[in-house]
Amino acid sequence: MTSTPGAAPIETDAVIVGAGPVGLFQAFELGLLEIRAHIVDSLAVPGGQCVELYADKPIYDIPGIQVLTGRELTANLLKQIEPFKVPMHLNQEVTRVAKRTDGRFDVETSGGTCFVAKTVLVAGGVGSFQPRQLKVEGLEKLRPEQVCYRIPEPAQCAGKKLLIVGGGDEALDAAIQCSSPGSNGAAGVALVHRRDSFNAQLTSIARLGQLREQGAVQFIAGQVAAIEAAAGRLSAVMVLGADGQTRRVAADIVLVRMGVSPKLGPIADWGLALERKQIAVDTEKFETSTPGIFAVGDVNTYPGKKKLILCGFHEAALAAFGVARYVFPEQAIQLQYTTTSTRLHKLLGVNPPTLP
Amino acid sequence: MTSTPGAAPIETDAVIVGAGPVGLFQAFELGLLEIRAHIVDSLAVPGGQCVELYADKPIYDIPGIQVLTGRELTANLLKQIEPFKVPMHLNQEVTRVAKRTDGRFDVETSGGTCFVAKTVLVAGGVGSFQPRQLKVEGLEKLRPEQVCYRIPEPAQCAGKKLLIVGGGDEALDAAIQCSSPGSNGAAGVALVHRRDSFNAQLTSIARLGQLREQGAVQFIAGQVAAIEAAAGRLSAVMVLGADGQTRRVAADIVLVRMGVSPKLGPIADWGLALERKQIAVDTEKFETSTPGIFAVGDVNTYPGKKKLILCGFHEAALAAFGVARYVFPEQAIQLQYTTTSTRLHKLLGVNPPTLP
Repeated sequence: MTSTPGAAPIETDAVIVGAGPVGLFQAFELGLLEIRAHIVDSLAVPGGQCVELYADKPIYDIPGIQVLTGRELTANLLKQIEPFKVPMHLNQEVTRVAKRTDGRFDVETSGGTCFVAKTVLVAGGVGSFQPRQLKVEGLEKLRPEQVCYRIPEPAQCAGKKLLIVGGGDEALDAAIQCSSPGSNGAAGVALVHRRDSFNAQLTSIARLGQLREQGAVQFIAGQVAAIEAAAGRLSAVMVLGADGQTRRVAADIVLVRMGVSPKLGPIADWGLALERKQIAVDTEKFETSTPGIFAVGDVNTYPGKKKLILCGFHEAALAAFGVARYVFPEQAIQLQYTTTSTRLHKLLGVNPPTLP
Repeated sequence: MTSTPGAAPIETDAVIVGAGPVGLFQAFELGLLEIRAHIVDSLAVPGGQCVELYADKPIYDIPGIQVLTGRELTANLLKQIEPFKVPMHLNQEVTRVAKRTDGRFDVETSGGTCFVAKTVLVAGGVGSFQPRQLKVEGLEKLRPEQVCYRIPEPAQCAGKKLLIVGGGDEALDAAIQCSSPGSNGAAGVALVHRRDSFNAQLTSIARLGQLREQGAVQFIAGQVAAIEAAAGRLSAVMVLGADGQTRRVAADIVLVRMGVSPKLGPIADWGLALERKQIAVDTEKFETSTPGIFAVGDVNTYPGKKKLILCGFHEAALAAFGVARYVFPEQAIQLQYTTTSTRLHKLLGVNPPTLP
């Protein structure tokens, strides 16, 4: 969901920044209090770290669930918040948050979506995920199609020598995709990683082994030390091997696939009190130094803080009551229980409640 | 599990008071930190309020679980803590907690179990469940077999007129059990409840209807206003009906089945700072005013406190790190993740981890 540039801003009670598990559960807790929310996330899919870092890895400490993967937890939470029909604005970062004279916030995203919100809840996890950068002198002077972080379109690769840097799943996926028969027609594929062992799915490692045997992928153990370019045109990459030898590897395109690294990003510029790049909050409402802006999950800090998903769930529950003071300033909001409250059963679409 | 009177006390790192969902998850969080714990609970089965108050009712706000019953949540948590083989001491209340000169605590239960523990974690919920008392003048002077809270043995009922008070499941269960053919041989069964409608399972209400039609149970809508007794022997109960009329109902035994009511119980006498019958704690470690004693779940209070199970889970996680300071005073305990830590995988018995 994106809005047309120049369209009227979306008026809402709350904007949740981050669609990770805590951001999703934040929407649930707000929904129980009948607070309307929108979610914004920089990734293309909800789930945050759960899908980006451990989609298929087991989590054992979600209370009441012996084991599930990050992807499964995300799917469960999406199912749980379904009754509240919370709009999600994906593939865009919140770039600007500014207090208005009427006490509400102007919230703008990199996708051109604008909100006027009574409150903002930062559920930013470890920040937004950015591709980890390759740092080599002169690289910044090359044109973007010569140094890229996403797999290039076939038209861009045709007849070109491709050098991929990285040793995880996304590097191997790129090597396999670009070197397989009928792929993008690259003139050659080289893979550079600091050692000949990979942190990737076993099937991918096996497939890479076949491609190396067939000569479809050339593997070089080492680190990119320098580039060779003339008149802004890349011709080769110098790789410093573990043996201390430097090898020249001819290359027209460097594809950097070194994983993602989270960055606090624009949040750092909103004027919130920070402690070691974490947002300082109280433990009563998980509100930041700016009244009306809350922070929950891994992005916040307070005495005793542990970066556990289950702690973020608690923070989201209490933050919802903090938000309620801004949304319903005239009312004292009572805690109701999902087990017994007819009002909550109606909101959840389970009136009368039935067990599966 | 009980210990023989006079046996040596059980030495342990932690005693958890309460086997409700938060007490069970507390054992899990302690287990992850390799802290040995024992659980004590006044009920005969683990689960606390989850089995006592809403065993078969749906809960919708456990994060990541769309809906489950109190009984299911309890079963899930028991499964989750299985790797830690935490001993449970049921059917007994912790009656005494006293600090020793060596800094540890003497902990004693009504079942005669004694511990010497480095720390105590009160996960007492709303307190221990006690049968709700019938308050009528003169009742306290009768012998226990004439006023009882548990269904009497057949030998005690034979030839006696039984009057049951209550309108919930446990009152109906008693009426059905005592009046059914081949039961305890009571000379008559009367049921007194303030109105002719019951908060009980539909099958029980239907069965009671049959027994009333057959004359096996006499129902009187009203409240017990007085008793008739001579020389310490009960002869009748006076019931004030909704119509304002008082009826005399002959009775030899009054069986009070008005449900359970939680009482803070002996915890109130341990010298912990209380606020409105809740135990005051910090939000960093959920420690009470007595160093080494922690309180988690519905029993505690702090600014922002909400009595939600999911909040108790968070409190248990942070309290475990507080307990670790007493158990491993020389070590700084680092947070490890169940997704990535080989050490935790070994503790959980999932080394290497496999998905179901």
